[in-house]
Amino acid sequence: MTEEKRLQSNQSFPPRRKHLSVDEYVQGVINGNRAIIAQAITLVESNLPKHMEMAQNVLKQLIPYTGKSIRIGFTGVPGAGKSTLIESFGMMLCEQNHRVAVLAVDPTSSVSKGSILGDKTRMEQLSRHPDAYVRPSPSSGTLGGVTRKSRETLLICEAAGYDVIIVETVGVGQSEITVRSMVDFFLVIMLTGAGDELQGMKKGVIELADAIFINKADGANQQAALNAKVDYNRLLHFLQPATVGWETKAFTVSALTGEGVPHIWDVIKKYKEVTSRTGVFEKRRKEQMINWVHSMIEDQLKARFYGSPLIKKSISEMEKFLVNGQTSPTLAVQQLFSIYDENGYGNKKSYSLKRGGN
Amino acid sequence: MTEEKRLQSNQSFPPRRKHLSVDEYVQGVINGNRAIIAQAITLVESNLPKHMEMAQNVLKQLIPYTGKSIRIGFTGVPGAGKSTLIESFGMMLCEQNHRVAVLAVDPTSSVSKGSILGDKTRMEQLSRHPDAYVRPSPSSGTLGGVTRKSRETLLICEAAGYDVIIVETVGVGQSEITVRSMVDFFLVIMLTGAGDELQGMKKGVIELADAIFINKADGANQQAALNAKVDYNRLLHFLQPATVGWETKAFTVSALTGEGVPHIWDVIKKYKEVTSRTGVFEKRRKEQMINWVHSMIEDQLKARFYGSPLIKKSISEMEKFLVNGQTSPTLAVQQLFSIYDENGYGNKKSYSLKRGGN
Repeated sequence: MTEEKRLQSNQSFPPRRKHLSVDEYVQGVINGNRAIIAQAITLVESNLPKHMEMAQNVLKQLIPYTGKSIRIGFTGVPGAGKSTLIESFGMMLCEQNHRVAVLAVDPTSSVSKGSILGDKTRMEQLSRHPDAYVRPSPSSGTLGGVTRKSRETLLICEAAGYDVIIVETVGVGQSEITVRSMVDFFLVIMLTGAGDELQGMKKGVIELADAIFINKADGANQQAALNAKVDYNRLLHFLQPATVGWETKAFTVSALTGEGVPHIWDVIKKYKEVTSRTGVFEKRRKEQMINWVHSMIEDQLKARFYGSPLIKKSISEMEKFLVNGQTSPTLAVQQLFSIYDENGYGNKKSYSLKRGGN
Repeated sequence: MTEEKRLQSNQSFPPRRKHLSVDEYVQGVINGNRAIIAQAITLVESNLPKHMEMAQNVLKQLIPYTGKSIRIGFTGVPGAGKSTLIESFGMMLCEQNHRVAVLAVDPTSSVSKGSILGDKTRMEQLSRHPDAYVRPSPSSGTLGGVTRKSRETLLICEAAGYDVIIVETVGVGQSEITVRSMVDFFLVIMLTGAGDELQGMKKGVIELADAIFINKADGANQQAALNAKVDYNRLLHFLQPATVGWETKAFTVSALTGEGVPHIWDVIKKYKEVTSRTGVFEKRRKEQMINWVHSMIEDQLKARFYGSPLIKKSISEMEKFLVNGQTSPTLAVQQLFSIYDENGYGNKKSYSLKRGGN
């Protein structure tokens, strides 16, 4: 047996074949072949034009198989025990014969050129479970790129038959809003001592939540967690609910003892039932898909404009003129657009930003 | 004396001359000539290309005279008594020899084609005061257009020597965020019975506030207002402050009795002092100006794209395909951009959105 043949016959470590056809990708994903799922996600994450085109052809055929999962977003401040809680929750679901995929969205990884989740051994137990699939955040590209890749990965996991998709926020920045925009249910993990820890949360995150779970409600911390629950419920009373017809509430949970973990699933099932009955569930999904398209359009329009070499050069000059009171904002915009329209994406000639006529 | 001459000599009712020169506008505004200020604002609000060009030439010359006021945003749910409070506050400032301009931002008026503020007799007392200028929201144009007009009106009022500019939100929608983005200090007016009234507030508005004033703290309502103040201060403890280095607090006020109205000005003066010392005040102003330019750029990019007749036509078709699972979001975007690039703004030929090849 040649080395190649030996590798091909080894089911647990299939070789990374470079030349799967579109149909092979599609069939492999639909059949739940883990190796091909991983390859399809890698294809979707690739920035090579050839791969991007193929990825879209694969996705187009997978679309009819998508949409059948519940999509759950998890966020929380660092130290809230998010990974441990997701692992505990995911293991419980696998034991109940669910198939669970865990994805991460980490826009900061596009800056640092390497995801902090590169280490796949986090959620060690869950990632070894045959019914679970744990995938780190795509580790390069623009913020818009990371979002697209995460959304398309979610679709691949759905087509592969995972019926619970957990999308986790990682890092700081816009990831909470991004994740909220791709999930059905958004869960915020908190700690005791509400007031202080909340300072570390981004503004408005609580208002995105369909449920708040106060973690580490165990041992000496239990009473404090119960107090925090009361505090959060009082706070929630002030805020509009994230989802029409659903009252966001706070609960306690312990990833350590497992107490309260089954209740997460109870809340989500109840949520699915209530929002499906009112049509809010389907309505949000449709809106999310259409909003996704519009946000990709806007990203692309901006990328073209700001990516134009002459605009890049003129922008900083314009900002200087503005701050010095040498131009008005509207005039500055007019001048930038005349540079853009004259030159397009190209770098045809040198062009200096005027201080404005008169 | 001809009718024309008679009108021209009448200082209180000057004629609306149609052909002021750029210099006449600039000098008139700088000299604080109310009639010319009104005409300059009308010029800025015009959608005629000829006027828009002239307006920019006027503004460019006024820019060096701007920036010397304190810009204060006022928001509050309908019924909170915003207008009455602004009038009472403005009258007090005028008595202290300040010059006060009150502007309104009402993006909804661009839909209804007529501002609810068209009736200028609101704030009757203040608008008759020689040191005050009350201007309704520009009543037509796109949302981006209303924002630009309000910002440019603010600059004109500053150049005219108004040293306190009050920008009021009107209607629903994005106006709170828009107003926050153009003011130094943002004040939210609330009522007693915190929890319930807050339900009517848009998400996140409290988090934009530099101060909360609970209005109608008078008569039988006084104790309830004091209780609401305690509630709001507890809520504020949970939230990040809107301005770095400034603690947002809740206070009570009565527009009716005037009690607490001077305290609004005390809080704002303190705020100006603290944030000027730390540099936060100037830093925010510069950021606001630069952000304004970028949001105008984005608005224009979107207006061009979505304004293209073929895109308009294709968008609804694309949304149908998406919802039916006949295309992937990324493919849909690719197709829309190839339509856009082939056709630009024009309407050269009929083009049908493909369902995406294989």
